[in-house]
Amino acid sequence: MQSAYPIEEIRADFPILSRTVRGGKPLVYLDNASTTQKPVQVISAIDDYYRNHNANIHRAVYELAEEATGAYEAARDKVARFINSPSREEVIFVRGTTEAINLVAYSWGRANVGPGDIIVTTEYEHHSNIVPWQLLAKEKGAELAYIDIDEKGELLLEQLDEHLETGRVKLVTFSLMSNVLGTISDVQGIASRCKAAGVPVLIDGAQAAPHMRVDVQALGCDFFAFSGHKMLAPTGIGALWVRREILEKMGPFHGGGDMIREVHKFETTWNDLPYKFEAGTPNIADTVGFGAAIDYLEGLGMEDVRRHEKSITEYALKRMAGVKGMTIYGTDEISRRGGVISFNFADVHPHDVAQIVDGEGVAIRSGHHCAQVLMEKLCVPATNRASFYVYNTREDVDALVTSLDKVARLFKLE
Amino acid sequence: MQSAYPIEEIRADFPILSRTVRGGKPLVYLDNASTTQKPVQVISAIDDYYRNHNANIHRAVYELAEEATGAYEAARDKVARFINSPSREEVIFVRGTTEAINLVAYSWGRANVGPGDIIVTTEYEHHSNIVPWQLLAKEKGAELAYIDIDEKGELLLEQLDEHLETGRVKLVTFSLMSNVLGTISDVQGIASRCKAAGVPVLIDGAQAAPHMRVDVQALGCDFFAFSGHKMLAPTGIGALWVRREILEKMGPFHGGGDMIREVHKFETTWNDLPYKFEAGTPNIADTVGFGAAIDYLEGLGMEDVRRHEKSITEYALKRMAGVKGMTIYGTDEISRRGGVISFNFADVHPHDVAQIVDGEGVAIRSGHHCAQVLMEKLCVPATNRASFYVYNTREDVDALVTSLDKVARLFKLE
Repeated sequence: MQSAYPIEEIRADFPILSRTVRGGKPLVYLDNASTTQKPVQVISAIDDYYRNHNANIHRAVYELAEEATGAYEAARDKVARFINSPSREEVIFVRGTTEAINLVAYSWGRANVGPGDIIVTTEYEHHSNIVPWQLLAKEKGAELAYIDIDEKGELLLEQLDEHLETGRVKLVTFSLMSNVLGTISDVQGIASRCKAAGVPVLIDGAQAAPHMRVDVQALGCDFFAFSGHKMLAPTGIGALWVRREILEKMGPFHGGGDMIREVHKFETTWNDLPYKFEAGTPNIADTVGFGAAIDYLEGLGMEDVRRHEKSITEYALKRMAGVKGMTIYGTDEISRRGGVISFNFADVHPHDVAQIVDGEGVAIRSGHHCAQVLMEKLCVPATNRASFYVYNTREDVDALVTSLDKVARLFKLE
Repeated sequence: MQSAYPIEEIRADFPILSRTVRGGKPLVYLDNASTTQKPVQVISAIDDYYRNHNANIHRAVYELAEEATGAYEAARDKVARFINSPSREEVIFVRGTTEAINLVAYSWGRANVGPGDIIVTTEYEHHSNIVPWQLLAKEKGAELAYIDIDEKGELLLEQLDEHLETGRVKLVTFSLMSNVLGTISDVQGIASRCKAAGVPVLIDGAQAAPHMRVDVQALGCDFFAFSGHKMLAPTGIGALWVRREILEKMGPFHGGGDMIREVHKFETTWNDLPYKFEAGTPNIADTVGFGAAIDYLEGLGMEDVRRHEKSITEYALKRMAGVKGMTIYGTDEISRRGGVISFNFADVHPHDVAQIVDGEGVAIRSGHHCAQVLMEKLCVPATNRASFYVYNTREDVDALVTSLDKVARLFKLE
């Protein structure tokens, strides 16, 4: 029930939402696809960790180290449950989605991709799901191929069929939700085709995991990457899930402490999963904070999170349609998109728009959103983007629309 | 002046030091070589960042993003100043020393090391400065060579000469301070030999940067890696310094956002230094915390930090010499060692020692300390290790010695 969503209690949990900007304007934060704000529950988890439990993990017998290790590994259990991983050993902590994808490109990619092989990605990927594959393809003499999008921002899956028919595809990688268009990919369509062709699938879940129930088993993927900082958790922490059969065959990425079993001068054996892929002292405190963020989201319920965002997005699309001179990108089918709305005004540079909007206290993003391939497709250098999360309200949307109306007036877009 | 060192004020800055462990025992934290505790100044910097300034950096025009970017880049300036980097562009933020060394092994190593080439490391390295080079050597058909240590724990530099004479050495890498023996390496001796031979030098500064004044220009090295969490900063953040001439020629490591200038479907150009090496959303909050930790250490003065630790270590070596049945490793020349003391009791497993000591509230480490090559050399599977930092006192040492006397009594080591 929409009415049961405790929006006022939620907003009270986010200290930053009560600050003002630009000389006293209340902050309206609408750049959640970039990073989200943090509730006191997450901030306090970090604070408590450093005030009361801080120690290095896995390697000592004293009480603090036991507590720190327990807190760190408890967070792994939470992440595993959150994405319905079959086991905790398949969850590797990384800095974020970018490191996760690079880990796959280096560890799995360099061992499994060779000359003439094809890696398939899509036109609406974030740079983090294009550049690692360009680097790998260049090193290995492999090729990169794209699934293009149609005018509604949906993937043209017949192109995936064509790529798969070559018999040379080694990996298909795509984002579950576009960070610019908000399009939710047809995972079942992609995964079933890839499964039939025996091709593994990597999902960039950076924009999806924060906003909807994710079940890596139901998705039918082999790799799933996501970031904590886009889902209420601290910066500097994220997770990579890899299906066990694949993970067990992957060689190490970083060498160092904790990822080894035995080190001799000229030979080394590796630690068990998942530790083999977590070299060195990890980001312990923020992993604990990641666990607290998951607790918070589970407390709300991911179904309610998605329902709330759908409602806000639907309202925003309706209201923004009334702003003069504005183009909104992506589908208007609300079940096919997340809480991300990219738009432009004819002939007004997105930076100018963002600056005027910022002057009213409304934080939106302007730029290429780390998706220049998509910008080329849309034939624009940049867009403006408003993106919503658990704490956003219809009043936030109203404030955005008022500021956009001001842009339209200033530039005489009548 | 030792008397001027404000130990009481310092201890009051560390909340965790007032907690008790094991049923009411005051905490005596002596595992600082593993990770250090955090002062309120650092904890508050993280808290303040999330409560008041959190946003993603480099990419937006709104006020929060400006503040977050400013705080993040100000930390880079602090790190650059702390190690006397000629410029801020040579400072790359990483998770810690392990990632820093792996970054060099992947980006620089794979482009510069080939079949038959030699990478020289030492017998007292941490796994993080051995395993990445084993991985690289295996991939490239290169060789790993070691500088052994003498019975005092000092490097046998004539072996470095022998290696260099082969004309095949591509890199010499060593820790400025051993994490087990506390030995401070003869940097000048190593760097001058390498410079004469035209061989670049990497310094693992994880144990050194927290404890003494570091000047990368005076050290004469080409790469310098260190971790924040061993110097009062949060977990999950560290830095790699690379001399500009080398850094400018290095290819990227991780691909993704922020490290690019332009991404097209099949080709990409790279961003300026240092951003080329910082793909994806970085650990923003902990970078700000890293800056606060450097402020704290600069406030104390690194010379005073070193002086305090020398005094504590000297006292500890003297008092521990009186414990029955104990072997202490490393040199007793105090100017040649840092605040790290490894030791064993004859026939008592280090884990048993650490457990008994822990029962008295004293946190020390037992194990191989991620230095199994050194353990082989010392002919032990493990050692106990006590390590000191800015907040440790002679009373801490007394508590340690009392608990060690208990071990000696329990095991009848008279």
